[in-house]
Amino acid sequence: MSISFHLMKEDGCARLGKIKTKRGDIDTPAFMPVGTQATVKGLTNEQIVNTTSQIILCNTYHLYIRPGIERIYRMGGLHEFMNSNLPILTDSGGFQVMSLSKNTKITEEGVYFNSHVDGKKIFLSPEISIAIQKKLNSDIVMVFDECPKYSKDKDLIEKSSNLSLRWAQRSKKEFGINRDKFLFGIVQGGVFNDLRIDNLKNLLDISFDGYAVGGLAVGESQLEMFETLDCLKNELPKDKPRYLMGTGTPGDILGSVKRGIDMFDCVLPSRSGRTGLAYTWNGKINLRNSKYATDDTALDENVNCPASTDYSKNYLNHLVNTNEILASILLTWHNIAFYQDLMSKIRYNISINNFENFYKKNFEMLNN
Amino acid sequence: MSISFHLMKEDGCARLGKIKTKRGDIDTPAFMPVGTQATVKGLTNEQIVNTTSQIILCNTYHLYIRPGIERIYRMGGLHEFMNSNLPILTDSGGFQVMSLSKNTKITEEGVYFNSHVDGKKIFLSPEISIAIQKKLNSDIVMVFDECPKYSKDKDLIEKSSNLSLRWAQRSKKEFGINRDKFLFGIVQGGVFNDLRIDNLKNLLDISFDGYAVGGLAVGESQLEMFETLDCLKNELPKDKPRYLMGTGTPGDILGSVKRGIDMFDCVLPSRSGRTGLAYTWNGKINLRNSKYATDDTALDENVNCPASTDYSKNYLNHLVNTNEILASILLTWHNIAFYQDLMSKIRYNISINNFENFYKKNFEMLNN
Repeated sequence: MSISFHLMKEDGCARLGKIKTKRGDIDTPAFMPVGTQATVKGLTNEQIVNTTSQIILCNTYHLYIRPGIERIYRMGGLHEFMNSNLPILTDSGGFQVMSLSKNTKITEEGVYFNSHVDGKKIFLSPEISIAIQKKLNSDIVMVFDECPKYSKDKDLIEKSSNLSLRWAQRSKKEFGINRDKFLFGIVQGGVFNDLRIDNLKNLLDISFDGYAVGGLAVGESQLEMFETLDCLKNELPKDKPRYLMGTGTPGDILGSVKRGIDMFDCVLPSRSGRTGLAYTWNGKINLRNSKYATDDTALDENVNCPASTDYSKNYLNHLVNTNEILASILLTWHNIAFYQDLMSKIRYNISINNFENFYKKNFEMLNN
Repeated sequence: MSISFHLMKEDGCARLGKIKTKRGDIDTPAFMPVGTQATVKGLTNEQIVNTTSQIILCNTYHLYIRPGIERIYRMGGLHEFMNSNLPILTDSGGFQVMSLSKNTKITEEGVYFNSHVDGKKIFLSPEISIAIQKKLNSDIVMVFDECPKYSKDKDLIEKSSNLSLRWAQRSKKEFGINRDKFLFGIVQGGVFNDLRIDNLKNLLDISFDGYAVGGLAVGESQLEMFETLDCLKNELPKDKPRYLMGTGTPGDILGSVKRGIDMFDCVLPSRSGRTGLAYTWNGKINLRNSKYATDDTALDENVNCPASTDYSKNYLNHLVNTNEILASILLTWHNIAFYQDLMSKIRYNISINNFENFYKKNFEMLNN
């Protein structure tokens, strides 16, 4: 088997692990920068590697629309297309169908919708999504799910979760036997613990290489998210990686590691970077603020990244205020390096049985 | 003396030379990427160095307006502010006063104008421009000149050239004796050869460390530009560097080296890169063109730069069409690397007495 997951240590519910793929190992808890359209916005592949990122995420929905799958498949897959050797996780498109597309019509067979780019009619199904992800040749493939908006309507969420379950079964069938790639199931059920647990049990019967928690980061409170993770943490199998989709802030991540999550992805560090916002070990700061005009200190000396240590806040304030591309580049680079520094410190503290202290010391600052 | 210029070889009128500054040597003919606002748009300093650029240009006018000089001076100068070890040439602001400012009023004393950013009233004079450039601590300082728009009105151009001459004298006085920096005079006189030669002779009487040709790249034809250079090439002193300001296309550069020019700057490789245009040894190409969707070959295998060799036209076409920042980054990076590759080939061919053949073989393609 060229893929595997090893749980190396537990500290409370926090877990230290290693995912092995044919393209390299991923130390968990891991953060995956988001490369929606086959590029992490603003960064070269060298800069991504420099942040110590070990895996990136790309979006099936976006790539299906532009540039289309054949242009990527022809070159051998996403790695060749974007010239990256890092392992890649592709999502299935379910979340983007909910959040981006128009005139969405959901049937048992799949989803009809209009492209958010040009309005073109598109159909996605479990079979199509998995076939696309195979052509993209990603290392971790996600089942195609229906991802409902945040809702307190339990009937609606239950119906949706059951549909996602049938789609998970079809995704697994389409995926077939593949020793080179992981296929992850996605637990749905909204903020209803009984639906979550029921959904998970059914997914376990189908059996996947990893389990994602989906349908969060859709508008619920952090408390609701943590409660959902609390209800799942003892039900998820220990020997499989656990991935919380689309999350989150540094505080969300720290709180979710405490609840047993191994993998994260989020556009926040890159999107925030493009608006002048930096995450630092002294808290979140907005470089647009005029007070940084007189601050000649580095962005964050604690983070081992050129963008963090080699440029003053004075200079960054100037770049942000003059809308220079370099502002987006340096702040995205730093923010992802900061996220990876956080993950590295989380892993270290789990390894020395000190996670709870680390959590207590940092949660409030990171959650602000 | 920590600064010097050495003319190492002539091949026809083309010259091979070396400018020595305290921050490093510059092999000439040289191309200077433009870092208007203390950043070459879209590139990190590491990427600029990777293109083999040996000097960059920054703009006094822009930096005076934003972020203001004191924020740069406080850190020790532009190098410290922008975290670059490369030598820097600063222009004097004369050209931008003409091209960017509003309500410009020119007096003997200097220029009153409104900032193009916020309309604020600003005054620049030779003394102020030189004092600013000293605070920026650039390695090559330009005299403050009046740069008229392209005109066939000889009286107007003569009056302007004479004013620039008096300002050149005042610039020299303000610059004083400075063994760490070059001060360049700027030859004006529009497209009138007698005015140009007269202006140059007067500048030679004042005596500068180098001579720039100004008042070109303002709307004249390439033929007019080349004729102006032809009239100056035997009048400019051999032992001083010669800089053609604001030029140009690869063809402009090749034709100007043939006419004895040593230094160039231009926004073209960076600005074109941001619009999807790439200069290659197979000619200029627009990556937006749909034909590149089926072209999996590298942008230009002949240019030794990751942006040139490691990404397919297929991928670059996708990045351009989806307005990804990485499109601007990679195409700017490649274009500047292409310009430097051109300069390197020019220098090599001068060194082996083959410049005229190189010119004949490449001028038409590079000038398209």
